[in-house]
Amino acid sequence: MDQQAIQSIVEEVVSRLSVMKPTKRSIPMAVSARHCHLSQSDLEALFGEGYELTKKADLSQPGQFAANESITIVGPRGSLEKVRILGPARNITQVEVSQTDSVKLGLKPPLRESGDIKESAPITLVGPKGSLYKKEGLIIAQAHIHMTPEDASLFGVDNSEYVKIEVNGERPITLGKVLIRVSPRYKLEMHVDTDEANAGSISRGSVGKLIKYEGTL
Amino acid sequence: MDQQAIQSIVEEVVSRLSVMKPTKRSIPMAVSARHCHLSQSDLEALFGEGYELTKKADLSQPGQFAANESITIVGPRGSLEKVRILGPARNITQVEVSQTDSVKLGLKPPLRESGDIKESAPITLVGPKGSLYKKEGLIIAQAHIHMTPEDASLFGVDNSEYVKIEVNGERPITLGKVLIRVSPRYKLEMHVDTDEANAGSISRGSVGKLIKYEGTL
Repeated sequence: MDQQAIQSIVEEVVSRLSVMKPTKRSIPMAVSARHCHLSQSDLEALFGEGYELTKKADLSQPGQFAANESITIVGPRGSLEKVRILGPARNITQVEVSQTDSVKLGLKPPLRESGDIKESAPITLVGPKGSLYKKEGLIIAQAHIHMTPEDASLFGVDNSEYVKIEVNGERPITLGKVLIRVSPRYKLEMHVDTDEANAGSISRGSVGKLIKYEGTL
Repeated sequence: MDQQAIQSIVEEVVSRLSVMKPTKRSIPMAVSARHCHLSQSDLEALFGEGYELTKKADLSQPGQFAANESITIVGPRGSLEKVRILGPARNITQVEVSQTDSVKLGLKPPLRESGDIKESAPITLVGPKGSLYKKEGLIIAQAHIHMTPEDASLFGVDNSEYVKIEVNGERPITLGKVLIRVSPRYKLEMHVDTDEANAGSISRGSVGKLIKYEGTL
């Protein structure tokens, strides 16, 4: 067996071990594809009066679900079809895309924490019963980690703190400025978007290692 | 002015300063969009007998150029049009795409150093005068740094060594397993693909900081 073949096999084994053996301080990774959250009134504008989302599958965060319903989102340069709606309905409509998606749409959404859509990018939503132009609501979601207060205590971090996360897959990567979000309702999980996942060979089953910033960020 | 506005402005200033003030050890970044290199015989199969590439623009690496010509690449799930050909013609045909692209094509190209296409993914190439099915040649290019022997000496690294590169943009990122490629013909520059660029807010003008691995990789 030549040197290259041996190296490939060793790398594959190391890569799989790092995926399969989460340590105490490791964080499960989840990849968020483009999706949207709709307010009940926007849902009705797109799907018809009195419409209610129907559940396709539960998500890892308790109470959250992927709906059977999807919409088309449109920008000045292009559109993206079958953008999944996540339920339940929220107070504000928010669409989360990757930087790659935003190039296709021809829009410049800011990098934001979920819920912070003030002066974000505009987006057109098209559903089976109508369409809407939202003056704001399109964002690129900042990488973040959901955790319980017990997890936060274990990791020695606080809500709203930024940390670095190292993921040692085939393309080793360390993501900085990752936001800690603490709630008793959460389940420990880091959310990255598809650009971050593709750049770092991250998929379901990958785990990250939390690194605290030294001093102030 | 509210706290959020102040923070945004400060972040923008810091981000621009980090782009504009490369230090002695900083490495200019370049983003490689999907592209292909063709052998002269494959070029002729796609564009006609005796065809020669025409230059659109010089690239940063001496002698390399973006051609006016482009092709369509096709996989079992989809195709990508206007894939730029880089010249001059090479000994072997090689197509470099991002992980995002490979999902669209429905193919699984390996992460490889340029030139190493053995048992890589198959790809169909379509030109104005013909098409070709290549049994191998489709890769995702491993992030790498071109440098001269003088640069290598300055950074204290050797050809084929792996290093980490830290880029402190809006989305701070550290890419691991970045390959050093040394040649007197090269100009100092790190090449990342569009997934890595989008995940790390990397664009022309961004600079990276080289970090050596401690011990063995």
